[in-house]
Amino acid sequence: MNIGLLGHGTIGIGVDRIIKKRNDMKVTRVMSLVVDDEIKGRLAETIDDIVNDPEIDTVVEVMGGVHPAFEFVSAALKHGKNAVTANKALVAACYEELLALAEENHVSFRCTAAVGGSIPWLVNIERANRVDRIEALGGIMNGTTNFIMSAMTNEGADFSETLKKAQELGYAEKDPSADIDGPDVRRKLNISVNAAFGVITSEDEIPTYGIRSVTAADVRNASSMGRTIKLIASAEMKDGVISAVVEPTLLTSDDLKAAIPSNFNLVWYRGAYCGEQCFTGQGAGRFPTAYNVVEDLVDIQAQHPGFYTEGRKHASIDNSNVLRSYYVRSAASDEYLASVTETVCDGYVITKPVRVSEMHEYLKKQTENGNDIFAASL
Amino acid sequence: MNIGLLGHGTIGIGVDRIIKKRNDMKVTRVMSLVVDDEIKGRLAETIDDIVNDPEIDTVVEVMGGVHPAFEFVSAALKHGKNAVTANKALVAACYEELLALAEENHVSFRCTAAVGGSIPWLVNIERANRVDRIEALGGIMNGTTNFIMSAMTNEGADFSETLKKAQELGYAEKDPSADIDGPDVRRKLNISVNAAFGVITSEDEIPTYGIRSVTAADVRNASSMGRTIKLIASAEMKDGVISAVVEPTLLTSDDLKAAIPSNFNLVWYRGAYCGEQCFTGQGAGRFPTAYNVVEDLVDIQAQHPGFYTEGRKHASIDNSNVLRSYYVRSAASDEYLASVTETVCDGYVITKPVRVSEMHEYLKKQTENGNDIFAASL
Repeated sequence: MNIGLLGHGTIGIGVDRIIKKRNDMKVTRVMSLVVDDEIKGRLAETIDDIVNDPEIDTVVEVMGGVHPAFEFVSAALKHGKNAVTANKALVAACYEELLALAEENHVSFRCTAAVGGSIPWLVNIERANRVDRIEALGGIMNGTTNFIMSAMTNEGADFSETLKKAQELGYAEKDPSADIDGPDVRRKLNISVNAAFGVITSEDEIPTYGIRSVTAADVRNASSMGRTIKLIASAEMKDGVISAVVEPTLLTSDDLKAAIPSNFNLVWYRGAYCGEQCFTGQGAGRFPTAYNVVEDLVDIQAQHPGFYTEGRKHASIDNSNVLRSYYVRSAASDEYLASVTETVCDGYVITKPVRVSEMHEYLKKQTENGNDIFAASL
Repeated sequence: MNIGLLGHGTIGIGVDRIIKKRNDMKVTRVMSLVVDDEIKGRLAETIDDIVNDPEIDTVVEVMGGVHPAFEFVSAALKHGKNAVTANKALVAACYEELLALAEENHVSFRCTAAVGGSIPWLVNIERANRVDRIEALGGIMNGTTNFIMSAMTNEGADFSETLKKAQELGYAEKDPSADIDGPDVRRKLNISVNAAFGVITSEDEIPTYGIRSVTAADVRNASSMGRTIKLIASAEMKDGVISAVVEPTLLTSDDLKAAIPSNFNLVWYRGAYCGEQCFTGQGAGRFPTAYNVVEDLVDIQAQHPGFYTEGRKHASIDNSNVLRSYYVRSAASDEYLASVTETVCDGYVITKPVRVSEMHEYLKKQTENGNDIFAASL
């Protein structure tokens, strides 16, 4: 297998180094902004150098971002080359187009590392679907926010100082919004939903509320209820209706997710036969992520086609039947919150079960209005 | 795929029912002690009815026990039929012979359900080994003992009443020794070691100490140290030396294994690239176990050979470099225990780090001498 590698940053260098130790595959061309000794003699100036190279049969995209990754991967597939990516933004935005292109051109498209980093998540979803029917899935899909919530829980620290620490350790980006506001989790949940339920859904339809406004007081309040706050993704397929939400959740202490430390991920699915299966591991990092990219390459060599979602039927996210109780700490009281409050506590309320979609609309409006508010489901 | 099914008990009925809903495979013959409507018209009187049936290409063995399961599976392999088993006693005792027979006869042998029930454990070890090098593994590999330890921890109950409850719920056998004394875990650890490290080892070489003598006082003592007692399997491959032990362990509260509830299993491995990967799920039960049997059948159809251990190099278990501190509660004091004691507490001692093999020999002798003793590593 001769590989064209798009991107030679953290993940790309990992992929390159793992492959260098194998004799069944070779990175023959590399596209990179920085040219150093490791890629000398293999530099591809443009994508054409790779897609027009008849020796290259497979392209690995680890540049990140939707553009020009989409154009590059599309060009590779159209030129009859297999494609592997670890790029969740690309997969979440262009899943359907990429699968269709792979199918039309009789090549493989795989993206195991795009969700869960080192965890064999999408591949085990694929495997389960051969025999079982996945009914629900979810988990902790973002290491940055888990690091922040773990540190706040263990050290009683405030959000802003913990975020700063995460940035210093390289766990959080300079602009942390993709992590702390939830879009990163939403993307991974959308990809998981598509693979598990065999559908194409739009990530924009998944209600998403992050941890930007969580405070040390919220963590203390949760702790006084014997609970731990984590940013949780969840989805279910019931009677043909798919629900999916990303929101902070107050977990009970016997919930495994509450014990996931530092920047680890925990993902789970429930099958009709196999019951609940949990997977934990590093959700990011050079070699953990590069590892699953190379596993995808081995699967392609073993003729594993990797059309995660056969048929690609469109489906909507519909949370209208999902009712949850919420912890809400709000600086301002209002009619809506009063109408759904079940218990008033010191500095926060617990609501009656309300529609998830209704609560997310309320939170969005309150946040837009500048109200200091934080909410988490129970 | 036409299947001959050996055994129609808890797991066999599960396998039969899952396959009935598929159109890519069929159970055409069943060996069973009990003949009911579900197998009428498909009964095989002897193993010859199955191995001499040219229509049958694959045999599923879910009878349990080493004999006559070994003779039956061997006969099937020699007659050019693939074999799938969920029988850990068979696999632990006859792994090498069965792999050799499968290879000689150019058929597949798979046993995913033999360790971890529903958990995709051996298959993910296989997958990891394609790209990574597994350095260590372990976990909670027995649901019965985990149920007992969880109940004793949560309810403060005594061992004997908890065992009785487990037996009433069907979680423990009438003769519980295979579970509570550790042989069941030892078998699963041995199979995992073979698959992960690519070797053939003898289960007899794995020091094994169970939970038969644990008391409510031990659980309280552990709790006062902020710890939880679980029966833990562990193994490592370091500088070519393989160590492996089964023993009760006092886990810290931030250890995920401490939070595994009821009769669930948690198994983990650590890869050089992928880091630590944990898997949890039901370790037993009709459909969870049958699920992984059918997954093996699908893998055979997909031409996945399933020689977990290529080459089958013999290796010894060598714990001489493994040092651990132990919690020891002993009714009698003696010279050895005094010589290794680091801290004397109320009713128990904590030892200095000692050789695992040394402590297991000591415990064996003490138990044989009728001393009321319980020990667990820290």
